[in-house]
Amino acid sequence: MLAVHLENGEVSVRRVARPRRKPGFSLVRLLAAGICNTDLELQRGYYGFRGRPGHEFAGEVVESDTQELVGKRVVGEINLACRQCDWCARGLERHCPHRTVLGIVRHPGAFAEFLTLPDANLHVVPAAVSNEQAVFVEPVAAACEILDQVKIPRGAEVAVLGDGKLGLLIGQVLVAHGARVRQFGRHREKLSIVERAGASVEVATAKLPVAEFNFVVEATGSAQGLQAAVQMTRPRGTVVMKSTVHGTTPLDAAPVIVNEITLVGSRCGRFAPALRLLAQRKIAVGDMISATRPLGQAREAFDLASTPGTLKVLLTP
Amino acid sequence: MLAVHLENGEVSVRRVARPRRKPGFSLVRLLAAGICNTDLELQRGYYGFRGRPGHEFAGEVVESDTQELVGKRVVGEINLACRQCDWCARGLERHCPHRTVLGIVRHPGAFAEFLTLPDANLHVVPAAVSNEQAVFVEPVAAACEILDQVKIPRGAEVAVLGDGKLGLLIGQVLVAHGARVRQFGRHREKLSIVERAGASVEVATAKLPVAEFNFVVEATGSAQGLQAAVQMTRPRGTVVMKSTVHGTTPLDAAPVIVNEITLVGSRCGRFAPALRLLAQRKIAVGDMISATRPLGQAREAFDLASTPGTLKVLLTP
Repeated sequence: MLAVHLENGEVSVRRVARPRRKPGFSLVRLLAAGICNTDLELQRGYYGFRGRPGHEFAGEVVESDTQELVGKRVVGEINLACRQCDWCARGLERHCPHRTVLGIVRHPGAFAEFLTLPDANLHVVPAAVSNEQAVFVEPVAAACEILDQVKIPRGAEVAVLGDGKLGLLIGQVLVAHGARVRQFGRHREKLSIVERAGASVEVATAKLPVAEFNFVVEATGSAQGLQAAVQMTRPRGTVVMKSTVHGTTPLDAAPVIVNEITLVGSRCGRFAPALRLLAQRKIAVGDMISATRPLGQAREAFDLASTPGTLKVLLTP
Repeated sequence: MLAVHLENGEVSVRRVARPRRKPGFSLVRLLAAGICNTDLELQRGYYGFRGRPGHEFAGEVVESDTQELVGKRVVGEINLACRQCDWCARGLERHCPHRTVLGIVRHPGAFAEFLTLPDANLHVVPAAVSNEQAVFVEPVAAACEILDQVKIPRGAEVAVLGDGKLGLLIGQVLVAHGARVRQFGRHREKLSIVERAGASVEVATAKLPVAEFNFVVEATGSAQGLQAAVQMTRPRGTVVMKSTVHGTTPLDAAPVIVNEITLVGSRCGRFAPALRLLAQRKIAVGDMISATRPLGQAREAFDLASTPGTLKVLLTP
């Protein structure tokens, strides 16, 4: 089968053996996959990554111990947990210390014609959700995670900083939740995607609002975003940290302490609410697909994905 | 009257007019005051401070519109709020955007023979609490604030980083709350103060525990403390930020996000629970008093307070 390989910053496509599924795992044929910023970071060598990336995908189960899965379209939770530790017992497989992670930590990723995942990780995709939409379940779940962690009342005003892929999904998820979203970004065109969903949008200038929001979501992807988010937050307010920036982020601790601000790190989320939102057409992802390329053109697809202004680039078998 | 003056890093003692109280304010005669790290920072020029410092004190009311206060020993909440805005209506005068702050922001401080504060800020000191103990009400309240912000179950293990004045009070407050406290510091002798209260103590080496605590309180007073605290925190755990370090603190955002850690900035607290703990003798402050000097020797007292190894230096009239 064709499979994408990352090594020393180079993207290559190789012909390799189809993976064998272990007991309890399904073999999944790829239908579509998405290139995430994390994949671009893996390419740049973060986490010392070398291997097959890809963790946003939709596929079809071709072999499984769970017969009712065979032939079904599925998406898959990316954390492969031990299912035996305290974290797993609490339903927090995403924090299992023994986990591997699809396409990120010691489990070959989805940028290939076939992949394997534990049956327990798979969710059947409803007919109302297309393959292309299903690719967005993983990042939509990451956006939904905010609502699992922080109690944001319906009707509350929330600032979202950033108009990248994740920022635009966060804005839409929060609008769907009933929040009044004010989204700040640098690109009028990207912002129009959340504007159509019902957010009010502002092209960010040097002068951002000061101490105006009880809730601020930082999704700029830049090291400077956190400081800006703290400045915008009211005393006793909450900043949700969504930018996985590498290296150290400068933080002026004094306003965090004086204003007793809470900073909440936020990562992956549960798939069920994300699938529901997509099936209900509450999240519009069509405008977020910049290009679709076959696996064989993965190198070009990665180049495109890392070009400023590009949103989601999909890979198809 | 004698009053301490800070300007350009210089501590001087001046003879000035006794302050006049405004309606609703009490005139308070100083009984004892404490030099806090914030005072040392004001001396170093933070906040562009110039004037009379001092916000930890016990005094006696000599004039007041509230007759039952006259002649009483009191301590005073340091934030002078407008009592008209939304924050004040919610009981969060400490975050009133119009506030002045005793000895810190546009209200002359307690390092003088007399000071004024609104009657509403004053709390009568029970007979069981000595003047010297009462000076600690303000920092004990700052320690108690942690329990107002973060739900720490009795019996939970909590790491406290730092063995400075605030760190030692935090350790004692958490022990009194019923937490199992593990306190990390650099000074065996200082740590023995919380050890006697019931904490287990460890002289911090380069190798601190990793991902071991659901709750970590960072009170090192150093810019490096936050990173160490994050490293010690389990996934989904909470770091309470108590070090008002100036300038930017380096923060590696990746573990905060990957482990979904919550960072909570924490400042001043309510006086009532602090007075209660001191009256019940649950907090031992005697060992924390390094020296007592008269106001006239304020310059020497500041020098002493900023000498490494010194804990609380008191000023008396």
